[in-house]
Amino acid sequence: MSEKRKICVVITARPSYSRVKTALQAIKDHPDLELQLVVAGSALLDRYGNAVNFIEKDGFTINEKVFMVLEGENKTAMAKTTGLGVMELANVFYNLEPDAVLTIADRFETIATSIAAAYQNIPLVHLQGGEVTGNIDEKVRHANTKLADIHFVTSEDAKNRVVKMGEDEAYVYNTGCPSIDIAAEVLKAPALDFDPIEKYGGVGGKLSSTEGYIVVMQHPVTTEYSEAKQDVLKTLKVVDDLGIPAYWFWPNVDSGADGTSNGIRSYRENNNPKNIHFFKNMEPFDFLKLLVNSKCLVGNSSVGIRECSFLGVPVVNIGTRQNRRLRGENIIDVLYEEDAIKAAIESQLEHPKNTKSTIYGNGNSGKKIANILATIELRFHKTITY
Amino acid sequence: MSEKRKICVVITARPSYSRVKTALQAIKDHPDLELQLVVAGSALLDRYGNAVNFIEKDGFTINEKVFMVLEGENKTAMAKTTGLGVMELANVFYNLEPDAVLTIADRFETIATSIAAAYQNIPLVHLQGGEVTGNIDEKVRHANTKLADIHFVTSEDAKNRVVKMGEDEAYVYNTGCPSIDIAAEVLKAPALDFDPIEKYGGVGGKLSSTEGYIVVMQHPVTTEYSEAKQDVLKTLKVVDDLGIPAYWFWPNVDSGADGTSNGIRSYRENNNPKNIHFFKNMEPFDFLKLLVNSKCLVGNSSVGIRECSFLGVPVVNIGTRQNRRLRGENIIDVLYEEDAIKAAIESQLEHPKNTKSTIYGNGNSGKKIANILATIELRFHKTITY
Amino acid sequence: MSEKRKICVVITARPSYSRVKTALQAIKDHPDLELQLVVAGSALLDRYGNAVNFIEKDGFTINEKVFMVLEGENKTAMAKTTGLGVMELANVFYNLEPDAVLTIADRFETIATSIAAAYQNIPLVHLQGGEVTGNIDEKVRHANTKLADIHFVTSEDAKNRVVKMGEDEAYVYNTGCPSIDIAAEVLKAPALDFDPIEKYGGVGGKLSSTEGYIVVMQHPVTTEYSEAKQDVLKTLKVVDDLGIPAYWFWPNVDSGADGTSNGIRSYRENNNPKNIHFFKNMEPFDFLKLLVNSKCLVGNSSVGIRECSFLGVPVVNIGTRQNRRLRGENIIDVLYEEDAIKAAIESQLEHPKNTKSTIYGNGNSGKKIANILATIELRFHKTITY
Amino acid sequence: MSEKRKICVVITARPSYSRVKTALQAIKDHPDLELQLVVAGSALLDRYGNAVNFIEKDGFTINEKVFMVLEGENKTAMAKTTGLGVMELANVFYNLEPDAVLTIADRFETIATSIAAAYQNIPLVHLQGGEVTGNIDEKVRHANTKLADIHFVTSEDAKNRVVKMGEDEAYVYNTGCPSIDIAAEVLKAPALDFDPIEKYGGVGGKLSSTEGYIVVMQHPVTTEYSEAKQDVLKTLKVVDDLGIPAYWFWPNVDSGADGTSNGIRSYRENNNPKNIHFFKNMEPFDFLKLLVNSKCLVGNSSVGIRECSFLGVPVVNIGTRQNRRLRGENIIDVLYEEDAIKAAIESQLEHPKNTKSTIYGNGNSGKKIANILATIELRFHKTITY
Repeated sequence: MSEKRKICVVITARPSYSRVKTALQAIKDHPDLELQLVVAGSALLDRYGNAVNFIEKDGFTINEKVFMVLEGENKTAMAKTTGLGVMELANVFYNLEPDAVLTIADRFETIATSIAAAYQNIPLVHLQGGEVTGNIDEKVRHANTKLADIHFVTSEDAKNRVVKMGEDEAYVYNTGCPSIDIAAEVLKAPALDFDPIEKYGGVGGKLSSTEGYIVVMQHPVTTEYSEAKQDVLKTLKVVDDLGIPAYWFWPNVDSGADGTSNGIRSYRENNNPKNIHFFKNMEPFDFLKLLVNSKCLVGNSSVGIRECSFLGVPVVNIGTRQNRRLRGENIIDVLYEEDAIKAAIESQLEHPKNTKSTIYGNGNSGKKIANILATIELRFHKTITY
Repeated sequence: MSEKRKICVVITARPSYSRVKTALQAIKDHPDLELQLVVAGSALLDRYGNAVNFIEKDGFTINEKVFMVLEGENKTAMAKTTGLGVMELANVFYNLEPDAVLTIADRFETIATSIAAAYQNIPLVHLQGGEVTGNIDEKVRHANTKLADIHFVTSEDAKNRVVKMGEDEAYVYNTGCPSIDIAAEVLKAPALDFDPIEKYGGVGGKLSSTEGYIVVMQHPVTTEYSEAKQDVLKTLKVVDDLGIPAYWFWPNVDSGADGTSNGIRSYRENNNPKNIHFFKNMEPFDFLKLLVNSKCLVGNSSVGIRECSFLGVPVVNIGTRQNRRLRGENIIDVLYEEDAIKAAIESQLEHPKNTKSTIYGNGNSGKKIANILATIELRFHKTITY
Repeated sequence: MSEKRKICVVITARPSYSRVKTALQAIKDHPDLELQLVVAGSALLDRYGNAVNFIEKDGFTINEKVFMVLEGENKTAMAKTTGLGVMELANVFYNLEPDAVLTIADRFETIATSIAAAYQNIPLVHLQGGEVTGNIDEKVRHANTKLADIHFVTSEDAKNRVVKMGEDEAYVYNTGCPSIDIAAEVLKAPALDFDPIEKYGGVGGKLSSTEGYIVVMQHPVTTEYSEAKQDVLKTLKVVDDLGIPAYWFWPNVDSGADGTSNGIRSYRENNNPKNIHFFKNMEPFDFLKLLVNSKCLVGNSSVGIRECSFLGVPVVNIGTRQNRRLRGENIIDVLYEEDAIKAAIESQLEHPKNTKSTIYGNGNSGKKIANILATIELRFHKTITY
Repeated sequence: MSEKRKICVVITARPSYSRVKTALQAIKDHPDLELQLVVAGSALLDRYGNAVNFIEKDGFTINEKVFMVLEGENKTAMAKTTGLGVMELANVFYNLEPDAVLTIADRFETIATSIAAAYQNIPLVHLQGGEVTGNIDEKVRHANTKLADIHFVTSEDAKNRVVKMGEDEAYVYNTGCPSIDIAAEVLKAPALDFDPIEKYGGVGGKLSSTEGYIVVMQHPVTTEYSEAKQDVLKTLKVVDDLGIPAYWFWPNVDSGADGTSNGIRSYRENNNPKNIHFFKNMEPFDFLKLLVNSKCLVGNSSVGIRECSFLGVPVVNIGTRQNRRLRGENIIDVLYEEDAIKAAIESQLEHPKNTKSTIYGNGNSGKKIANILATIELRFHKTITY
């Protein structure tokens, strides 16, 4: 008799879902694997885009929902949310009895998944270790690496770094990033075959054209908390001044969320920019279609680094959030300065940097991950290599 | 005007206190530092030796006591204890507003201190990183390293490892281990000037002699949970058979505590060994005097690796718990096999390996630590060096 | 030697603060009492009006701030918030060592204060027991009564009910409601001497007149969760249709908060009513001045029952939220029906029911409470009287 | 289509299980009901008798296990355990979606079940309300009553009290106590057909006879915390002096557990009484057989009040723990005084008070409870009757 391996994946935020979706599908479809899906944290909350709705709509069965976000929108609440997450997820894993748990990337609450699994001797798989960003996310990411037994990284650069940190190379796999799988799918039929506002609602200017637009996505930077509001106001002002049609995406939850969100709200109240339309969320596939048909992505999202490099979408990357992440030729980096942001957008509009790259994978990461999970020796005991 | 730097130290277990005591004293005494002391977890609990009593008796003021140990004595409870610790310590740091937080070594709950500090952008100092043991403690220790901003390690070996993991060498200090400071103090007046049973009570054989005895200290090994009981029974049988007077120390709390403790209880109930006396706890200074006058330390305590190397006390180290830790010439390593344990004890009694070593420091670690804390740039933002 | 009695008051929401403010002041001013103030829950949160800012502005020192609100805005999150509150407040009381703890009224999280105090054998004082409302608040209120040792109620009606529930009459005091104290103060100089919009900002119609307006305050009703949105839309439509200037206050946090809040948001987005201005919060004193100069209060706030009966302000009370609460002659009760709401407002505008009453006190409740706390035997052991 | 009603019962301690066992069986067997069983708190812990093992051996399927006991054995830990219980049980009910939740009696943590159910609008059934004891248990019991929607009480006395507290008589049922059902079963074949020590182990005197013995069961009294140790020492001394064979049962977890337990441990260490044998636990059925064949029950257990009144077993009830509980003719009440305890035991041995009574039911409570649960209107909204 052969039993399926139970792979438990914990999704704690909207962007994490996009990043891991094809791996979820591949695990679900694999004859030797059983997917256990846990949706937690801001992925359950209305004001952060309710990722849970998209997950269910995509046909995934959710085994457990874990409410763990403590209000306060400050650093103390981030710590407590994480502590609560450890307690809740310990229960979940105790009850689900997975053969392995998969934690994603580097958001602050992902270490809750790591601790709850590692302390119960459940083999821990970490997705997207080995990258460099330089704030609390980086501490969390590398701590996840040291708690994890198996590593799926998204580039050779990241693989080298994980191995240098003392992890056994036999357990470090460069699978590429599953988010590229969706991008590869999008490229097969890239036409914008839906009306964004009609399908997703949102608020702000009623953009009539679906051509010649840019996309904006700017998140607060955790360790620059107090500046979140003024940072977003700069970008708002530049986009407003340029008058170019823009689809703007609301930030996901984070310590400075209210800074960014309040900046957007007050700018709208006072200036009511007609050329900007605001969305809370969009299905990943539609979002990528919107991107591939756009003139440029502006902001500090990792989508600019990953998906856009594969898609060849020009990017204006603002600030330090993506510092030291491996990047393609499509990016212009600028600081939070109005003039620089404006000049960079204009440059991308006039002379778009749209070279494509496979540094983050070539479109089959999800299946690679599932295949490795089905066959690798699952261990929960390791030691540093030096 | 110059304000003192507030250094908050979190003690979560009896052995951690011994390990950090001289650093606490040096911080307290330093003109530019203010000590904030938090006692938490098993350090507050009667059945794990009530370290809190010794701390208060030593003249330290405790700023906060944090009850966080969840009953269950299983792995799920360990995870939940940690989660609860994050939540509670987040409060504590929010209220105490320390300039830096110090977390000690690698017990499972120490990562709670790390998360509560790091997520609130409080500079985190980690004591005793860079060592190798090969179980959940090792995962925790290295994760602590990746969350910490400043590292105080106890040997060159450890320093090299922390630096190789990507930490900036400018923030990695080989201070030696503060526990060696106490050992150095003991060596100035090493005579056994108290009667252990009279002073500390305990149960078991009323040993009349204070010479020619051995000391035993055997902890459960977390990832060998189910074997804890049979492991301790082997050592009990060997020591009982040898008939040599033995002072035996109860294990501190851990996932397998009941295995070890129940093994001791049932052996006593059934065999009532007259040559073994059991203690729950002893003041660190007295404990080292007991050690330095003993024939041998038996078990798997890190005291055998650290303090005994400095003191030149022969050690029989059993099992994997201290694997790959840097060690002096005083140790014989054996597995959990009765014959091997017996032979090793006999060898140490007949041909004692009592060479002294300073690989873990030369007796002034506490002051080194305090001096560095008083002057170093306190940062909470770092990035991996490669 | 005589030590001051330490009285710890826990404020968990904006309206609770208004209700207890003069008692806080009287405790603070009393020579035999020391006030320990804990601000917790939604009273700390920006999107529920940040009561904490008003508390500090009023000159109170806050001993502890307790973040405990779990996001989710559903019933599970309400329960978890309460559980977390118990854990956090247990710590707080352990550290503050109060001689008595005061818990206020009947919000769901107030039972956390009660449990944390009662279980630690700290005498528990309950404010505003014995009232009747008929939903989860009522269960919480009466459970608070059964956990409390000393009762300060606001009417004879309430006193009789608490005594009938088996409480010793010697420990049940009809002190009147401290909120009436503020109302009494307002009546001494009732002129509207500030411009509400200038002083408090807010959003919506820029009302130029400060006369001839109404005030609206409509909270979600916990056990009618799903209807919160459509309920508020009815009142919005009526007030919009009537065209009368209206100052509308945002609801405080509760299970259906998003229903009510989203109703308001979507109505504003679609209809942009020029005669309605929305506030998040207002200092209690200013709020009462606004009320006493208004034509009518509309909604389901207990302010309509209490303060308005004393002030003689006409009230249109909508729905079941204030059911069976003792009331004066100033109220017209209606269900959530547009026609009925409209007719009732018109009736109050044309033939205002503005009789004054002292059923909820005569203006010195705060001092009564402080005096009793200074002299009563503080007990934590009681038994039912029958 | 007819669906079974899902009735969720939460067992948090060994004695609660005995008290509710026949109701569990009747719910499980009822064609219109589905039993959801949650085992939590000390019922999961080895050192409190591991009730979970008995529950599983009795053939019940456990839906969820909830670890929630915080170590510390002090009042702060009791409060925190309760808070943690609310958080954990909120999850459990959210996932199990019961049609009603049943909470048992008055232990401190039972209010966690009540809050987690009531706040999620799940109809709450309370077993054994309306009794009087006069310490924290009484506060908890009556608070449970005020949170509950349906009441199953064990005597007319209790029913009257619950109704007087303002509960609707239509929802208050005197079902008798399910523990009497087991006692009735025992009376059908009362012979002691097993050797207690052989079957249950334990420690202490190896009693050879199974006749002419007494049974002792003494719990710490929560609000007399510091006296727990000296109280138990008195009873130990009396029983030791009398020399009569005694089966002594370890106390269940409570704030003073260590006082009582340590008293027993130290007395055994020092005096080693040959006539006393100590058990940690016994299956309820066997325990009642042991009781019915005993000369007398000594201590402060509610078993003396309930089961022993039905069985006609003489009881020496010590101290205040059972104060004001309705009692039969079988009891002699004494205070914690050696002489009085001794005299009372001697009196029961010489002139046993062994009258039987049905004040707590006549043996079919479990079935009554199941039948009512299958047919009653399940409500979660109530209001006080006056």
